[in-house]
Amino acid sequence: MASKNLLTGIKNIMEANLKDLNICVIGLGYVGLPLLTELKKKFPSTIGFDINKKRVLELKDKVDSTNEVSKEALELISDSVFYEPSGFKNCCFFVVTVPTPVNHHNVPDLKPLHDASELIGSFLKLGDIVVYESTVYPGATEEYCLPILEKNSGLKCNIDFSIGYSPERINPGDTKYRLPNIKKVVSASNNLALRTIFAVYHKIITAGVYKAASIKVAEAAKVIENTQRDLNISLINELTKIFDLMDIDTNDVLEAASTKWNFLNFKPGLVGGHCIGVDPYYLTYKAQSLGYYPEVILAGRRINDSYPKYVASKLIKSLLKKKFSIDNSRCLILGYTFKENCPDTRNTKVLDLYNELSNYNLKVDIYDPLLIKSINDHKKKGLRFIKSPKKRTYQSIILAVPHDEFIAQGVSFIKGLLVNKDCIFFDLKAIFDKKDSNLRL
Amino acid sequence: MASKNLLTGIKNIMEANLKDLNICVIGLGYVGLPLLTELKKKFPSTIGFDINKKRVLELKDKVDSTNEVSKEALELISDSVFYEPSGFKNCCFFVVTVPTPVNHHNVPDLKPLHDASELIGSFLKLGDIVVYESTVYPGATEEYCLPILEKNSGLKCNIDFSIGYSPERINPGDTKYRLPNIKKVVSASNNLALRTIFAVYHKIITAGVYKAASIKVAEAAKVIENTQRDLNISLINELTKIFDLMDIDTNDVLEAASTKWNFLNFKPGLVGGHCIGVDPYYLTYKAQSLGYYPEVILAGRRINDSYPKYVASKLIKSLLKKKFSIDNSRCLILGYTFKENCPDTRNTKVLDLYNELSNYNLKVDIYDPLLIKSINDHKKKGLRFIKSPKKRTYQSIILAVPHDEFIAQGVSFIKGLLVNKDCIFFDLKAIFDKKDSNLRL
Repeated sequence: MASKNLLTGIKNIMEANLKDLNICVIGLGYVGLPLLTELKKKFPSTIGFDINKKRVLELKDKVDSTNEVSKEALELISDSVFYEPSGFKNCCFFVVTVPTPVNHHNVPDLKPLHDASELIGSFLKLGDIVVYESTVYPGATEEYCLPILEKNSGLKCNIDFSIGYSPERINPGDTKYRLPNIKKVVSASNNLALRTIFAVYHKIITAGVYKAASIKVAEAAKVIENTQRDLNISLINELTKIFDLMDIDTNDVLEAASTKWNFLNFKPGLVGGHCIGVDPYYLTYKAQSLGYYPEVILAGRRINDSYPKYVASKLIKSLLKKKFSIDNSRCLILGYTFKENCPDTRNTKVLDLYNELSNYNLKVDIYDPLLIKSINDHKKKGLRFIKSPKKRTYQSIILAVPHDEFIAQGVSFIKGLLVNKDCIFFDLKAIFDKKDSNLRL
Repeated sequence: MASKNLLTGIKNIMEANLKDLNICVIGLGYVGLPLLTELKKKFPSTIGFDINKKRVLELKDKVDSTNEVSKEALELISDSVFYEPSGFKNCCFFVVTVPTPVNHHNVPDLKPLHDASELIGSFLKLGDIVVYESTVYPGATEEYCLPILEKNSGLKCNIDFSIGYSPERINPGDTKYRLPNIKKVVSASNNLALRTIFAVYHKIITAGVYKAASIKVAEAAKVIENTQRDLNISLINELTKIFDLMDIDTNDVLEAASTKWNFLNFKPGLVGGHCIGVDPYYLTYKAQSLGYYPEVILAGRRINDSYPKYVASKLIKSLLKKKFSIDNSRCLILGYTFKENCPDTRNTKVLDLYNELSNYNLKVDIYDPLLIKSINDHKKKGLRFIKSPKKRTYQSIILAVPHDEFIAQGVSFIKGLLVNKDCIFFDLKAIFDKKDSNLRL
């Protein structure tokens, strides 16, 4: 089955007992950096590469703007990160952790995968293994990436080199579940490569490594995880709309339902970020190309993508009911990142909320203590970011992203920013007691 | 707040220290019978009522066709069940556990609730409490049932009597989670009644009793539990359709995805019964009357309601690919009830599967060992039920409802019913090893 070339290459990897394995991690973001630091501990020759020069220089300076790895980890890898691919020629095990976003039409943008594959292809040698970690639709690794590798290397998969897929399961900002203690799924184009990939990840993942039946199965497993989460949140978001019409507090209902052992305790909210709100579109894109319209998944996407408009309308209605003039009142949004305690703003739905409120002619400020360093970047985009909020200034405040810092400051801090107690505190995610806010979902 | 009448009535209940409380359970099906038996242990005067004379006579004979309660429990209650409401006049605490189905247009059929409320209303006295357990849309107890009680009693709620809502959480056929060890939600129209209702359930529920914020909240909590389950299964069913187009085995994907700590392990399948496939329609019915079209919930319902057609088409395609003549081949469906190990056939989707296969002109037999006693009822409806399957008879077999009995007999029993090994064993729920079947979802 496997050719002599393949066998020789992989044998070299395995005989070196892995410890001298030259690994290259391509893409040093939320996924790549933690992976690089863990690999580096076990495989000292591991290097990291990113086309983003600024990011690489930052890492060389032992600074991680994503807040994902420790100072010690940065010490370990700071000399091994590059924005030039010169080190690729010594590597035989490539791991691709580039982003897989969607464009403005919610269509998968595979350019980062394309460029990474092209680059690796131009360095690929006999026996090498390329593992993709980026979330894609089932089939993308073999149908899209592999031909690029083959074209740029002149080599043939499963004869000259091997590929694999191991979905990343990084949860940005999560301090409990980190790379080593999240079970890792691996798959490969042939069994020899699968054994090698398994052996590599086995060294760094304490939670265990699971061999999936095929690359497509591993790709599918990843994309459905976030699709399931997205759909479950969309149900709760839909319920908030229904219960609002019935004058029922959704959080009361969720609390009562949660007393059943098998109720799934999802909360309503804005679904942003580069995963949950994006991954389902990869699956639906592929499904539609095969002639199937995924109505459940896309119904969920519609609810979640339109939810910022609903949230905005709730605030506007409340302001008008309380006889506030929208034109002359000021609103403060607390939190702008796509999730709590994480400085990532990619695909944040707070932007949609801000834009929608601005369309009602409301004057909105944004305050996010996690983004003080990058405040000028956001201001340049025309967003009214502020460095610190002034007391008794706002007619309405939305706690959109409840960073720990906001919770620690307590509800009195937030209320102190309102002009008076008739003003509206919209506790979007029902963080504080019901009596402490006058609006929630 | 509470009137003298109300206070006196409830005081009587509480002062009797509950033990002499005369409770009446209306509706003695899957929900009412277990409730009656538990109440009877703590409140010896409790009686049960059902308009179904056959069911009552069966219970008097200490036979329970639903298999939900023990012989000892039947001994305890057999003298206290009636199909005439004569005993109502001594009761002051009524619990309504009648069915709440949908009609052929998937519109809630509230007739059982109507009739039960009318009957109770005609017996209602000062201080009485009426608790509803039937699953309804939020608002139904107060907007629909209460006016019937008031009209037929001439009494006023919260002045002369009280109402409450405590959603049933019975899981038919479940031997682990039984009435006493499932936390119970209670709610009431006033605080005095809430305390009484809490006290009554507290005596029989060891898992604890939870006071919901209002009757509407308790109604909503129940209806979303099954809506959530229905939607999650619909997602997996949609995924099977997508993965089938990609030549991916869904069960392989689910196994890989389940290695993530927070993946929710739902399985594809037919969603029937009187709860999961029905309750969401109660919620969407009410939502639509308020002007909101619940697109996520109804997308899920569409997938699940149409799933039998999809399952049928999979079998027909497989038969044709294997060059079987549909006209001249015989199919056996194993299992007909709406779920495993439970003789309940209400709203079973196996009927839809049977009808759809018959529409392809396939000759289909049904074998369900749990329905041997009622086989003639099913035959009268024109269904080809058989008492026991013959060996080497079928070109295809669908294991639709994997009762423990089928699993215990093993795959060799099932395969022995096929004409030869080229024939198709469709392991719908992937109960046996992948290699043991030649078709699954």
